[in-house]
Amino acid sequence: MGSSYGKHLRLTLFGQSHAPAVGMTLEGVPAGFTLDMDALAAFLERRAPGRNAYSTARREADRPVFLSGLVGHVTCGTPLTAVIYNTDTRSADYENLRYVPRPGHADYTAAVKYGGAQDIAGGGHFSGRMTAPLCIAGGIAKQLLEKEGIRVFARVLAVGGIRDEGTLDAPVDGKPFPVVSDAQGEKMTARIAEAAQEGDSVGGIVECVVTGLPAGLGDPMFDGMENRIASAVFGIPAVKGIEFGSGFEAAGMKGSEHNDPFAVRNGQVVTETNHAGGILGGITDGMPLLFRAAFKPTPSIAKAQRSVDLRTLEAVPLEVRGRHDPCIVPRAVPAVEAAAAIAVLDAWLDDRPGLSARS
Amino acid sequence: MGSSYGKHLRLTLFGQSHAPAVGMTLEGVPAGFTLDMDALAAFLERRAPGRNAYSTARREADRPVFLSGLVGHVTCGTPLTAVIYNTDTRSADYENLRYVPRPGHADYTAAVKYGGAQDIAGGGHFSGRMTAPLCIAGGIAKQLLEKEGIRVFARVLAVGGIRDEGTLDAPVDGKPFPVVSDAQGEKMTARIAEAAQEGDSVGGIVECVVTGLPAGLGDPMFDGMENRIASAVFGIPAVKGIEFGSGFEAAGMKGSEHNDPFAVRNGQVVTETNHAGGILGGITDGMPLLFRAAFKPTPSIAKAQRSVDLRTLEAVPLEVRGRHDPCIVPRAVPAVEAAAAIAVLDAWLDDRPGLSARS
Amino acid sequence: MGSSYGKHLRLTLFGQSHAPAVGMTLEGVPAGFTLDMDALAAFLERRAPGRNAYSTARREADRPVFLSGLVGHVTCGTPLTAVIYNTDTRSADYENLRYVPRPGHADYTAAVKYGGAQDIAGGGHFSGRMTAPLCIAGGIAKQLLEKEGIRVFARVLAVGGIRDEGTLDAPVDGKPFPVVSDAQGEKMTARIAEAAQEGDSVGGIVECVVTGLPAGLGDPMFDGMENRIASAVFGIPAVKGIEFGSGFEAAGMKGSEHNDPFAVRNGQVVTETNHAGGILGGITDGMPLLFRAAFKPTPSIAKAQRSVDLRTLEAVPLEVRGRHDPCIVPRAVPAVEAAAAIAVLDAWLDDRPGLSARS
Amino acid sequence: MGSSYGKHLRLTLFGQSHAPAVGMTLEGVPAGFTLDMDALAAFLERRAPGRNAYSTARREADRPVFLSGLVGHVTCGTPLTAVIYNTDTRSADYENLRYVPRPGHADYTAAVKYGGAQDIAGGGHFSGRMTAPLCIAGGIAKQLLEKEGIRVFARVLAVGGIRDEGTLDAPVDGKPFPVVSDAQGEKMTARIAEAAQEGDSVGGIVECVVTGLPAGLGDPMFDGMENRIASAVFGIPAVKGIEFGSGFEAAGMKGSEHNDPFAVRNGQVVTETNHAGGILGGITDGMPLLFRAAFKPTPSIAKAQRSVDLRTLEAVPLEVRGRHDPCIVPRAVPAVEAAAAIAVLDAWLDDRPGLSARS
Repeated sequence: MGSSYGKHLRLTLFGQSHAPAVGMTLEGVPAGFTLDMDALAAFLERRAPGRNAYSTARREADRPVFLSGLVGHVTCGTPLTAVIYNTDTRSADYENLRYVPRPGHADYTAAVKYGGAQDIAGGGHFSGRMTAPLCIAGGIAKQLLEKEGIRVFARVLAVGGIRDEGTLDAPVDGKPFPVVSDAQGEKMTARIAEAAQEGDSVGGIVECVVTGLPAGLGDPMFDGMENRIASAVFGIPAVKGIEFGSGFEAAGMKGSEHNDPFAVRNGQVVTETNHAGGILGGITDGMPLLFRAAFKPTPSIAKAQRSVDLRTLEAVPLEVRGRHDPCIVPRAVPAVEAAAAIAVLDAWLDDRPGLSARS
Repeated sequence: MGSSYGKHLRLTLFGQSHAPAVGMTLEGVPAGFTLDMDALAAFLERRAPGRNAYSTARREADRPVFLSGLVGHVTCGTPLTAVIYNTDTRSADYENLRYVPRPGHADYTAAVKYGGAQDIAGGGHFSGRMTAPLCIAGGIAKQLLEKEGIRVFARVLAVGGIRDEGTLDAPVDGKPFPVVSDAQGEKMTARIAEAAQEGDSVGGIVECVVTGLPAGLGDPMFDGMENRIASAVFGIPAVKGIEFGSGFEAAGMKGSEHNDPFAVRNGQVVTETNHAGGILGGITDGMPLLFRAAFKPTPSIAKAQRSVDLRTLEAVPLEVRGRHDPCIVPRAVPAVEAAAAIAVLDAWLDDRPGLSARS
Repeated sequence: MGSSYGKHLRLTLFGQSHAPAVGMTLEGVPAGFTLDMDALAAFLERRAPGRNAYSTARREADRPVFLSGLVGHVTCGTPLTAVIYNTDTRSADYENLRYVPRPGHADYTAAVKYGGAQDIAGGGHFSGRMTAPLCIAGGIAKQLLEKEGIRVFARVLAVGGIRDEGTLDAPVDGKPFPVVSDAQGEKMTARIAEAAQEGDSVGGIVECVVTGLPAGLGDPMFDGMENRIASAVFGIPAVKGIEFGSGFEAAGMKGSEHNDPFAVRNGQVVTETNHAGGILGGITDGMPLLFRAAFKPTPSIAKAQRSVDLRTLEAVPLEVRGRHDPCIVPRAVPAVEAAAAIAVLDAWLDDRPGLSARS
Repeated sequence: MGSSYGKHLRLTLFGQSHAPAVGMTLEGVPAGFTLDMDALAAFLERRAPGRNAYSTARREADRPVFLSGLVGHVTCGTPLTAVIYNTDTRSADYENLRYVPRPGHADYTAAVKYGGAQDIAGGGHFSGRMTAPLCIAGGIAKQLLEKEGIRVFARVLAVGGIRDEGTLDAPVDGKPFPVVSDAQGEKMTARIAEAAQEGDSVGGIVECVVTGLPAGLGDPMFDGMENRIASAVFGIPAVKGIEFGSGFEAAGMKGSEHNDPFAVRNGQVVTETNHAGGILGGITDGMPLLFRAAFKPTPSIAKAQRSVDLRTLEAVPLEVRGRHDPCIVPRAVPAVEAAAAIAVLDAWLDDRPGLSARS
C-alpha cells in the first residue's frame, strides 16, 4: 500500500500524473468547520509551477473539486474527498521510459515492484504532482490548526549550497521567493538559473516551524512528534533527510550545550534555548516545533545520462526531454507545510478531538 | 498511544525503567522459525551497559524470558512475547524529579501529557532501557532476515565531532568499539572519557547498512522505506535526525552528480554510485540500503543545570546525581540495527509473507 | 472515522446521497490485473433500483468512473479510485428532517454526532446509496477471487417471515428474484407488494456462500474470518445480525450433533457436515464458508409515525414523503456479496499477496 | 496476525494454554486512573472454572500480575501489561492431537495455517483460556466506563434450547447462575448436567446490555457500534452469531412495527421501544445498547467421534480424554461483557479521550 497516513486523521492520496485525476480523502475532520476556499486556493497556488523563472513553464490550474464531506463549504463529519482533474493526460511521450529507467527516478523500482504494470506516464503515482492533493489536505489541516492559534510556516533554507540567513520567526510566503534574507534568496535564484542553463538541477533544504502548540502533544516511542512528522514528510518525493531542532549538529555538541534550561516566562514554563526543536521524548514542550527536510536535486535533467535497457540488459545513453524544474525546493515549501500540518493535526486530534471546529 | 509499530509485523513495547519488567510483543512472525537463543543473547549483550570505560557501570542482566509464541525455541505463529524482569526497581531516588524536570529529558512533557501520573522512576517508559525489548524484537527480525541473505549492521560514525573513516562494508560488531577505523575509534573513546571527566556528555551519529535486499520492497508515499525506517528509528530515545544515502549532503549537489547511473553487473541491474542509499521512490533498488541517525548528547549530566519548580514556577538549580552514560552512541548501535531490521522485515513480509521460515 | 476497512486491502468509501459523487478508494490490489468492466457493470446493475415492481422507481445510472489506479483497464499497483457522480442532488426536500428525525433512521444520531452539521439530504453518508461504491470495490474483489477459483454468491433467504427452500449450491443471480425456490420467491414478492400497498415495509435475511477457499485463511481471535466478515457486513445499512454456519441454531444443539466429523474425499480433508460454516478457530477449513445477515425492514415508510421536534422537544407526527423501497433485501444481495468478497480478499492477501493477478 | 483489537484503545492478547503465561497489553488507557484490584479479581473469578457442578473441575488461580503501565495501582499513561502465569504446562497429553484433529476444534485449521508448527497443547492460542487476559482488559475497561456512569452486564439467555424469562434490567452477576429467572436457570443447569452425564455438551446464548451511554458514540459504516462490538465478540472462541436489538427477528417484522418512535422523557430524546438495540446508523441513540451472542456447544466431548489421521489420510476414531466443560456459556458471560466493554470504551475514547480518569 503506502498512500495512507495518520491515526485519528486519516489521509489517503490517489491518482497518477496522467490519470484522469489526482485526489485525496481525509477522514476524521471534525464536523461543522467552514472551509475557506479562497485561502485553500491561495495555498495551492504556492506549489503551482510556472510562477517564476526558476520553475517549469507548464501551467496547471490546480483547482480542487470537492466530491464529498461538505454541505456547502462546511464539513459534515464524513470523509472529505477532493480531486484535481488532470488536463494533461497524453502518455505517448513516456513509452520509451518503460524499458530505459531514468537515473534518480522510481522508473526502475516501480517496474520491479509492479511487474511491469506500473503507470509510466509522467512518473505515475511517484510524480511530484501527488503533492497537489497533499497540499489540499494540508491546506485544510492548516486552517483547522490556525483556528487553535497554531501556525505552520516554512522557508527555503538552502539551495545548491547557498544558505538563507536569519531566523524564521514569521511566515515569508508573501514573498516571491520564500526566504528570510532576500539577498540570499537572490543568490539562490541565480544558482537555480545557472543550473537550468547547464541542463542540470540543484537540491536544497526546507525549514519548517510550528508555533502556538501546547505542551503535551505526541506520544512516546513510535508515535512521537518526530516519528509522525518524518513519516509524513518522507511522503514528499525527493526528501532524503529530516532533522529536528539542532538535528545532526547536536551529534557534535556536549550535553551541557545542548540541554535547554527550563525557565518561566509570563507564567509559562519555557526553555531558554530550543535545541530540542520543541520536542522532548516525542512530546511537544510548548516551544516552537522546528525541523528541516533535505531535498535531493531534481532527477530530471537535460544532460546525457547512463542507463540500461531492461529488455536487453545493455548499457544505453539516456536523454530526458521536455522542460523540467531545475529546482523543486521553492515549490516544495507548501508541501512540507502540508505534511507538517497533517501530522500535527493528527496528534492534536488524538488528544482533543473536539477542537473548536464549530464556529 | 505510541508504543506499537508496523503493518504486517506488529511490535508493541511495554514496560518502564523501574516497573516489574520491560518487554515486547511481536505479531506476524512466520510460524516454524527456530530462534537462535545464543545469537539473541549475544545481540542483547551489545547494548548492555558496563562493558567499557565509556558506559555506565550499573550492570543489567538482560536475559529475555519468552512468555508466549514459542514451542521450545520454534515460533508457533501466535504473538511472541518476551520480557526482561527489572531487578533494580527502587524509585525513591527519583521523587525530586517530579516537580523539577531535568533539561533535555521527557520529565516535563510527560508531566503535562499524563497530568502528573507519569512514572518518574528512571525515566519510566521514556528510558533508554526501552531499547532492550526493542533489541529483542530486532534480534529476532535480524535472524529472520539473515535466513534470506539480508544483513543489517551499523557502526559509530561520529562521536562529539570526531568522525570514523572508511566505508562500512561488513559488520564491525566484533570490535569492542564498533568503528571501521580503530584509530578514529580511539580518539572517540578519549573524547567520551574527557566528557565523563567534565561531568558532561557527547552525542554522535550511527550509520547503518542493509545488504542483500531485493529490489522492490517498500511502497510509494507514506510507506516508503524511508518513512518506515524513520518511523522506527525515531522510536529510539535521543535520535534527532535521520538521512538516507547522501542525505543532507544531497541538498548541495547537482542532479548530474547525485543521480546514480544504471549499469549491469553480473547480469543484475545496479547503480554505479549509491547516492540514493538504495531507495528510489520509497522502494529498494537492490543496492545497499544506507542511512545515518543523529543522536543528541545524553541529557543526564553531572554539571549543574537550570530548571524550574513546577509547583511554584520558580527557577531552581538542578544537579542530577548518579552515574550516567557520558555517550550512549556505542550502545545505540544495536538499537539502530534493531529498528532497521524490524522496518525491513515488516516491508518484506508485506510482499512475501511466507519467507523461508520453515527450516 | 468509520468509512475505511481492511488490513492488507484497504477500502475507503466516501460520498453522500446528494453530494457531487459517491466513491471508493481501494489500496492493495495487486498490479497487473485486467478489470472486466462489463462484468463490473453487470454486478452493479444487480443493486440498481427500479428493476422490479418491488423496488423504488427512481432510476440511477450507476456508472463507475475510474479516476486512478488503472492504465487502460489494468491495475497499476497504486490506489484504485472510482466514483459515481450523483445526478440527483436536490436537497430542498430534506430540510424538514433536520429537526424532526425519522424513526429507524440515523437522522437523530447523526445530528448528535456531528452537532447539527450532518448532511441531511437523502440520508447523507448513511444512505443505502453508499452500497454503490461498496459494490464497485466488491465487484473488483470478486473478479480477483474468481481468478483463484473462489466464488462468492448469495440469495434472499427470507423476506417478511417467508423463507426460501433448498440449499444454495450455485449462484442464482441470473434470476429476477434471487432465491433457490421460485415458488417461495413469488410468495416473497407478493409479501413485498402487500407491504408497499399498506405504505409499510418488510425486512429479511440474505444468505451468502463462498466456495473454493483453501484451508488456512484468517487468524485467531480478532482477525478471524467471522470478525473480518462481520466487520464488513455491518457496514451495510440496516444489517442487525450475522451468523456463521448453524449460527444461533447451534446454541440449541449438542456437541455430538454440531461437531463436524473429519473425513477424506478425493484425497482432501473435508468435514462430513458443515455446521461450522467453513470456519474453525477463525480460520477457513476448506469447506464452503456460509453466513446469513439479518436486515431490518426499510425504515422509510409512508405510514404516519411519531417523532419529536429537536428544537422544542415536543412530540410531532411525521409523514415521510416520496417513493421508497418497501424491501431493500433483494438489492442488498450484491452488497452482501461485495462485503464478503472484500473481507475474503483481504484475508487472502494477508497470506499470499502475489495472487495470480498477472495474466 | 489477529490478536490485536481497537483504534484508540489497543488491546493485544498473547499466550497459549500451556505456554509460560497468557497476558494482555492495553494501550491508550488514560493516565491517572486508579485500578480497583479487588473488583478486577472478582470479575476474573466469574470466568474461573470449577465454581459449580456444571464446569470443569480443574482449578486455575487467575491472578493477574501487572508488569507495566502502573505506578502503584494508578495508570501512568504507558502500555498496561498484565499476565497470568500458567501453572499447568504439561504438554504430553496432547501429542496425539497433532495428527488427529478434534472435530469442532481449531486443531486442523491451525495445522494448515502454521504448517505444523502450531502449539497443540491445550488448544494453544485458540484455547478458551485466552478469555482470561481478555477479561483482565475488559475488567479494566468496565471500571473506566463505570466512572462515566456506563454499566455493562450480561446474562445467560439460553442453554441447550431452554430460554431465560424476563428482561435484563440490572446485573445478575451476584447469582451463582447468571439468569433473570432462577426457575429457568435451574432447568438450564439440569440440562447441562444431563449433557455431562451423556459425555456430551450444549451451546447457548449470552445477552448483554450497556446502559448509561450517551447518544453519538460510534461511526458510520465500518466503525459502527455493531461492527466494533461484533469484531470484539467474535474474538471469543465458540461464538458463531451476533445480533443487535431485535436482530434476526427484525427480518420478519414490518417497518411500522420495528421503527422505534421518538419521544421525550425527562427532557431527553428517547425512543418508545428499543428494537434498534440502542444503535441507529452505527451510532448510539442513548437507549440501552443490547446484543446477543450465540455460542456453539463445547467441541470437547467424551463421546466417540470420527476424524482422520493427517499423515495417512485414513479415517480414525477419536476419543477426547480429560474432564471438559459440558457448557462454557455461564463462564462466557464475563468474556462477553469484557469484549463489549473494550469495544465501547474504544468508541468512547475516540470521541472524548480525556474521560474523567483522574480522580
